[in-house]
Amino acid sequence: MSLNAGRRIGKYALQLVLLEGDEQSLLIDRIEQLGFKCCYGHVGAMDTQKIVAAIETTSKKHGLIQTGLYRESHALYHAIMEALYGVTRGQVQLGAVLRTVGLSFSVVRGRPYVTQAEGDWIAVALYGTIGAPVKGLEHETVGLGINHI
Amino acid sequence: MSLNAGRRIGKYALQLVLLEGDEQSLLIDRIEQLGFKCCYGHVGAMDTQKIVAAIETTSKKHGLIQTGLYRESHALYHAIMEALYGVTRGQVQLGAVLRTVGLSFSVVRGRPYVTQAEGDWIAVALYGTIGAPVKGLEHETVGLGINHI
Amino acid sequence: MSLNAGRRIGKYALQLVLLEGDEQSLLIDRIEQLGFKCCYGHVGAMDTQKIVAAIETTSKKHGLIQTGLYRESHALYHAIMEALYGVTRGQVQLGAVLRTVGLSFSVVRGRPYVTQAEGDWIAVALYGTIGAPVKGLEHETVGLGINHI
Amino acid sequence: MSLNAGRRIGKYALQLVLLEGDEQSLLIDRIEQLGFKCCYGHVGAMDTQKIVAAIETTSKKHGLIQTGLYRESHALYHAIMEALYGVTRGQVQLGAVLRTVGLSFSVVRGRPYVTQAEGDWIAVALYGTIGAPVKGLEHETVGLGINHI
Amino acid sequence: MSLNAGRRIGKYALQLVLLEGDEQSLLIDRIEQLGFKCCYGHVGAMDTQKIVAAIETTSKKHGLIQTGLYRESHALYHAIMEALYGVTRGQVQLGAVLRTVGLSFSVVRGRPYVTQAEGDWIAVALYGTIGAPVKGLEHETVGLGINHI
Amino acid sequence: MSLNAGRRIGKYALQLVLLEGDEQSLLIDRIEQLGFKCCYGHVGAMDTQKIVAAIETTSKKHGLIQTGLYRESHALYHAIMEALYGVTRGQVQLGAVLRTVGLSFSVVRGRPYVTQAEGDWIAVALYGTIGAPVKGLEHETVGLGINHI
Repeated sequence: MSLNAGRRIGKYALQLVLLEGDEQSLLIDRIEQLGFKCCYGHVGAMDTQKIVAAIETTSKKHGLIQTGLYRESHALYHAIMEALYGVTRGQVQLGAVLRTVGLSFSVVRGRPYVTQAEGDWIAVALYGTIGAPVKGLEHETVGLGINHI
Repeated sequence: MSLNAGRRIGKYALQLVLLEGDEQSLLIDRIEQLGFKCCYGHVGAMDTQKIVAAIETTSKKHGLIQTGLYRESHALYHAIMEALYGVTRGQVQLGAVLRTVGLSFSVVRGRPYVTQAEGDWIAVALYGTIGAPVKGLEHETVGLGINHI
Repeated sequence: MSLNAGRRIGKYALQLVLLEGDEQSLLIDRIEQLGFKCCYGHVGAMDTQKIVAAIETTSKKHGLIQTGLYRESHALYHAIMEALYGVTRGQVQLGAVLRTVGLSFSVVRGRPYVTQAEGDWIAVALYGTIGAPVKGLEHETVGLGINHI
Repeated sequence: MSLNAGRRIGKYALQLVLLEGDEQSLLIDRIEQLGFKCCYGHVGAMDTQKIVAAIETTSKKHGLIQTGLYRESHALYHAIMEALYGVTRGQVQLGAVLRTVGLSFSVVRGRPYVTQAEGDWIAVALYGTIGAPVKGLEHETVGLGINHI
Repeated sequence: MSLNAGRRIGKYALQLVLLEGDEQSLLIDRIEQLGFKCCYGHVGAMDTQKIVAAIETTSKKHGLIQTGLYRESHALYHAIMEALYGVTRGQVQLGAVLRTVGLSFSVVRGRPYVTQAEGDWIAVALYGTIGAPVKGLEHETVGLGINHI
Repeated sequence: MSLNAGRRIGKYALQLVLLEGDEQSLLIDRIEQLGFKCCYGHVGAMDTQKIVAAIETTSKKHGLIQTGLYRESHALYHAIMEALYGVTRGQVQLGAVLRTVGLSFSVVRGRPYVTQAEGDWIAVALYGTIGAPVKGLEHETVGLGINHI
């Protein structure tokens, strides 16, 4: 039941939001060769719900989760919420406490464990900046949520 | 006052805990060439306080913060706590809710903003696994805390 | 000062939101024969404040709390907030994290302890579904708050 | 994908901890006739970890989750944690804030949705008393956690 | 139902922990002339439960709450917990996150509202220092909890 | 590195919001004689962001923090957030959970430690009332946040 060192979906999801350009493209190839699915995007928001919606929409469009199957939406939703804890560090609030984020997000789905029976898991990574609603008054932030699916 | 794209201390701290071997060594060289200080280590714990202590001790030993100067300890402490929010996602508790972590940690200190007056900031990154106190019943987790120092 | 087994206001409040039709009617009779007051209703919302308002309004209309007496409003308010912790499980937020609820609520007021001097207490129970703002993408949820009044 | 009114695992789990004697036995029969699995028990604790351990052990012993399969342990663990939010209402802490609980717990596993593809879900219900570590200085408390499995 | 400007129990409780020597003595006289009861003390702790216990014990010894009457213990307990939120600012934890406090505490009980029917309320104030378990690595902290009793 | 008894910025900030008229004026004189900077104001709000904005604006206008320097805005922001934990005691929410505040706020900046190298720290104090959005249905509340700057 151990994690397979070469199949760490969390690490792949994090690298997807940390890397850019060619490095990111090479990573996507590698992720897909492992039989994993992945997608990524960007979202700027003062509303946490906008982030949730952006990730859900992108995930459905790229077939990361099956539209209309609640158990998959439910798994993704909780992974997103857990990633938001890392980004917000205390209260899952943005505009309500006068701050905003500019985030890259990624979702990776696949089988990270040695044992076949562990099945698919999903990882949601967020990386970007958080700060006052004034350009430049911001610092970096990250979050990762992982769930069985 | 904008973040300097090539001086993102959070990204460097995250890569320090995500990369291994030669890739990590090259990264350390690059970090030090920028005039940043960094250190890293590993800690396994069911007590959050053991994580806090390990990071503080390593940071002092490598001169990331000045021993005996409270404002620097205070800055580091809050960066650690914020990183723990990402790792624990809800309640900053491990053994109390029957879970344990095996974490790599890193600390990077330096000047990430274009404007000189913004001075030094500190980033604490955590990456590893969290799960039941049974080998293998675990998944990945990450956290990042950033503070002015 | 022990709880009287037959006068558990929390259990009555929970059964009021779990039972329907004749079973609920019989329960109401039994609650009133004990000298307790009770009321119940339904509320669908993406705003937590709408839930608070619905329960407060219904409670005042049915004389569960005395309008204009702050100590009674204060007791009820905290019982509602505690019930919302059970429903939301982490952050007391609904629409802000893109979820909605459909809830039955009940309030029971009376003397649950053997000792007369313990006086009246109030119980607020919530039961229903929580999920995405899409019909069917939801699961059950419950909450109970109890306070001295 | 809608919830099947007669297959609400959360309501069954709650009734399992609210009912006693013959009523509880009849309920167990009904739950099992639906093809659901269930188990229940009691735990008194000042440590939240003791509650988690008691529910996990009982669930494994009764075959509610498959021992050694992490995805099932993970699903159960998060359902337990969510139920504890309802019980503790704010901070998932007991002895640390000088309070103790005496809880009945139940776990129900089965298919609650009309659509076959939604598969099994798991519900954890907690009901009992919470209060000072002095007999009688306590009031009722409840919690419910639900997860896909 | 308005607060009576001269009978603000929260302000009195705060001043009791902020003032010292003669100023504190004069304040106690004034509090008692209003018909309020008050008590105060000091507690140093890495365990939140030790703080709760110290305040409860002192309150009972000075007759602020009636021993053995749960509704009074319950009111005091929640006022203490609310004050601890202010002191800990995020997670109600001390030693678990490697920090310690040295606190003065006070409890004031009386009728703060113009309307007689609002009855007695209780205020718990905490003021002191919080920081690393090293002398001097600490800053000030405060908390106030208020409840109807 | 110890706190200087006569230079406790938290206590000064708290007294600034607790005292009125001549007493407050005398205190301001004393604060300024110590070489500290201070400012204060009032804000009524159902939105936490309005409180954050009011304190930031007043602080900048009175030169407590340097406009455009992010490290100073960051220090102040976290001090405000910590003060809000004391005011809200659980969830940093006001209107969202149907409550409102009327607060006096103060900010004090200066060197509170014996050791010169500890430099400037900033204290944010809040005191006022919190309650239902109905005149009079409210009780007192306080919060204090302290940060290195």
